[in-house]
Amino acid sequence: MSLIVQKYGGTSVGNVERIKNVARRVARTFSQGNRVVVVLSAMSGETNRLVAFTQECSEFPISREYDAVISTGEQVTIGLLALVLKEMGYQAKSFLGHQVPIITDSSFGSARIEDIKPGNLMAELDRGVIAVVAGFQGVDADGSITTLGRGGSDTTAVALAAALKADVCEIYTDVEGVYTTDPNICSDARKLERVSYDEMLEMASLGAKVLQTRSVEFARKYGVPVMVRSSFNDATGTLVCKEDKEMEKVVVSGVTYNKDEAKISVLRVPDRPGIAALLFRPLTEAGINVDMIVQNISHDSQTDLTFTVTKTEFKHAMKLVKETAGKIEAEDVIGDPNIAKVSIVGAGMRSHAGVASRMFDVMAREGINIQMISTSEIKISCVVDVKYTELAVRVLHEAFGLGKTDVAEEK
Amino acid sequence: MSLIVQKYGGTSVGNVERIKNVARRVARTFSQGNRVVVVLSAMSGETNRLVAFTQECSEFPISREYDAVISTGEQVTIGLLALVLKEMGYQAKSFLGHQVPIITDSSFGSARIEDIKPGNLMAELDRGVIAVVAGFQGVDADGSITTLGRGGSDTTAVALAAALKADVCEIYTDVEGVYTTDPNICSDARKLERVSYDEMLEMASLGAKVLQTRSVEFARKYGVPVMVRSSFNDATGTLVCKEDKEMEKVVVSGVTYNKDEAKISVLRVPDRPGIAALLFRPLTEAGINVDMIVQNISHDSQTDLTFTVTKTEFKHAMKLVKETAGKIEAEDVIGDPNIAKVSIVGAGMRSHAGVASRMFDVMAREGINIQMISTSEIKISCVVDVKYTELAVRVLHEAFGLGKTDVAEEK
Repeated sequence: MSLIVQKYGGTSVGNVERIKNVARRVARTFSQGNRVVVVLSAMSGETNRLVAFTQECSEFPISREYDAVISTGEQVTIGLLALVLKEMGYQAKSFLGHQVPIITDSSFGSARIEDIKPGNLMAELDRGVIAVVAGFQGVDADGSITTLGRGGSDTTAVALAAALKADVCEIYTDVEGVYTTDPNICSDARKLERVSYDEMLEMASLGAKVLQTRSVEFARKYGVPVMVRSSFNDATGTLVCKEDKEMEKVVVSGVTYNKDEAKISVLRVPDRPGIAALLFRPLTEAGINVDMIVQNISHDSQTDLTFTVTKTEFKHAMKLVKETAGKIEAEDVIGDPNIAKVSIVGAGMRSHAGVASRMFDVMAREGINIQMISTSEIKISCVVDVKYTELAVRVLHEAFGLGKTDVAEEK
Repeated sequence: MSLIVQKYGGTSVGNVERIKNVARRVARTFSQGNRVVVVLSAMSGETNRLVAFTQECSEFPISREYDAVISTGEQVTIGLLALVLKEMGYQAKSFLGHQVPIITDSSFGSARIEDIKPGNLMAELDRGVIAVVAGFQGVDADGSITTLGRGGSDTTAVALAAALKADVCEIYTDVEGVYTTDPNICSDARKLERVSYDEMLEMASLGAKVLQTRSVEFARKYGVPVMVRSSFNDATGTLVCKEDKEMEKVVVSGVTYNKDEAKISVLRVPDRPGIAALLFRPLTEAGINVDMIVQNISHDSQTDLTFTVTKTEFKHAMKLVKETAGKIEAEDVIGDPNIAKVSIVGAGMRSHAGVASRMFDVMAREGINIQMISTSEIKISCVVDVKYTELAVRVLHEAFGLGKTDVAEEK
């Protein structure tokens, strides 16, 4: 008898009809002899509706009260699913964050899970009850309700799976799994059977919106196998799991892209210790996340410094950087929001030389100018003009043999 | 320094603009040097929306899960009010039922308050915090969320006022107070300055929809002074309080009516012990509430038995009564939904004779036939044809001198 945690997102519980679909799937898993814990998001659109209320009430709403308000969406869906399951003749019980309990710190709006006490859930599972747990929420040491930030329900599911030592954590979503790239760009994009935690992390943070990054970190830390699959059909999904020998044989597992960033270049910065710190400190203080940073060797004690931020923070970042640039006597600040980041990801890169140069070759052959490069052990990212995004993705997908007909097995 | 509990209903918090109005009123009360506890309902319409969801999920939804779902409306409004108050520069904190805690039994959908531990609230009030408490909800011994039934927020407010030994419990609503009768029927209906708990109970259960019956019982039991007033203006409301000498001078305080009942007569019932029990048992088992019951002296060992039920339960009740009538060999069952109950209420009736006969006289003079009569110490109710409702209310209101120009002070 396995213990399975199933998580369903907002579109899967978007109305009562869909909640009934979820109930049928949960019931089937239970009837196959498994113990089942279900984690739900709010109905799609509901959390946005609640956030909008708080924004009408307060300029900076994120606080204890904000979390009390926006956590109600999950409370509704878990109650409704438990009702449907009971109507179908199953024993079911809903659990709010504080009823599990899922204990978090007090960072309202983006709390981190500190501990999960599995006793209450286990006792109910042992009695044959299907446990339905609210995603996205927890409780802090003072008994205040907290929320885990956007996509937090994935994290709830993985953390519960870890605490309950579940056999698998299934994440049901509106796609069938993790693909070699965006099927909207490459019609021959292939669903991956398995992907390692590290690859998934690179893919998640690079723009493949399948799994929330924090949930993958959690899964890696506790070794929880995560199956990503569709709630609308029965196709096998993608298993996110520990890296193994087979995975290392695949040099490139996927091609991802991200059009949500903008580039800022500070020209002819005096090349002195502490200058970079001076430039980035105001950004950090304003809560602006800097992604890629490139600084080249200097000439005449001057250097150019380029970095990327999200498009929504671009204007604010430009203003702050221009202020600092004046103080440190940089020559100019140039911003460019018309960029995209295109990346290749693969656990096999660690042991294969020449992947980067092949990537650059492929892009050069198509006349795509590379503006910035950044690498990690298992990924290479290039910033290019946004107009080349789709072209770059397609040629890389083909060059590394990721298409359906042509499985990548480079030696 | 007084401690004031203020309760605002669904129309008073129907949108963010109105929640801001509530915040200004709360802030003013606090700024006048009072400690303030606010109890809120859900936004008007929200609880109905949530109930409809549960009904889509289950034929008989009322259960632990039902309460988890429908208690979310209040969680939203208390969070939003606390946000607005903080935005205005006040300290404010929201409290869910389990955070107070308000401990109830486990009768989901209509739980009864068993205990309120005031320590958490008192500590915050002592620190200068405005406490914003979710109405309508509590927590049972297992930590499950419970709800108190429709109108339960009034009960929450009064119970909190009792537990905190508040100086007054203010119930803000969309009317200015308790009137001598429905101003839509009598344009000269007068707002009462004070009304006793007993009078208010008779008025509430007779159809004056100002205060929920259970909340008045609670207020009477613990001697909590309750002020009913409008959230849309500053007019003084009606104080519901202990009876005093002045009140007893007023024979009739108000005229009420109720068109929501229907009449069922069982004709020529054998007059044997146990027959009434046989008739009413199936109704009780079906959860049908019987209001007035009239049985007259018997002739030839047979009697007629007449009683009233709510209009919504009329058809169901008729079916059950017809089944029993066949078994006990009653001659016939006659139903009539076209009735109204018109009542006069007054603490002074206890010490004044002749009130009933005067009521019957007044109605006879207008040709209004009285179909049923029922009395208590402080009220007299008559069932009449529904078409006479307004006429009966107007002539009684005038006959007992309740109009604006003509204050009732009968000796």
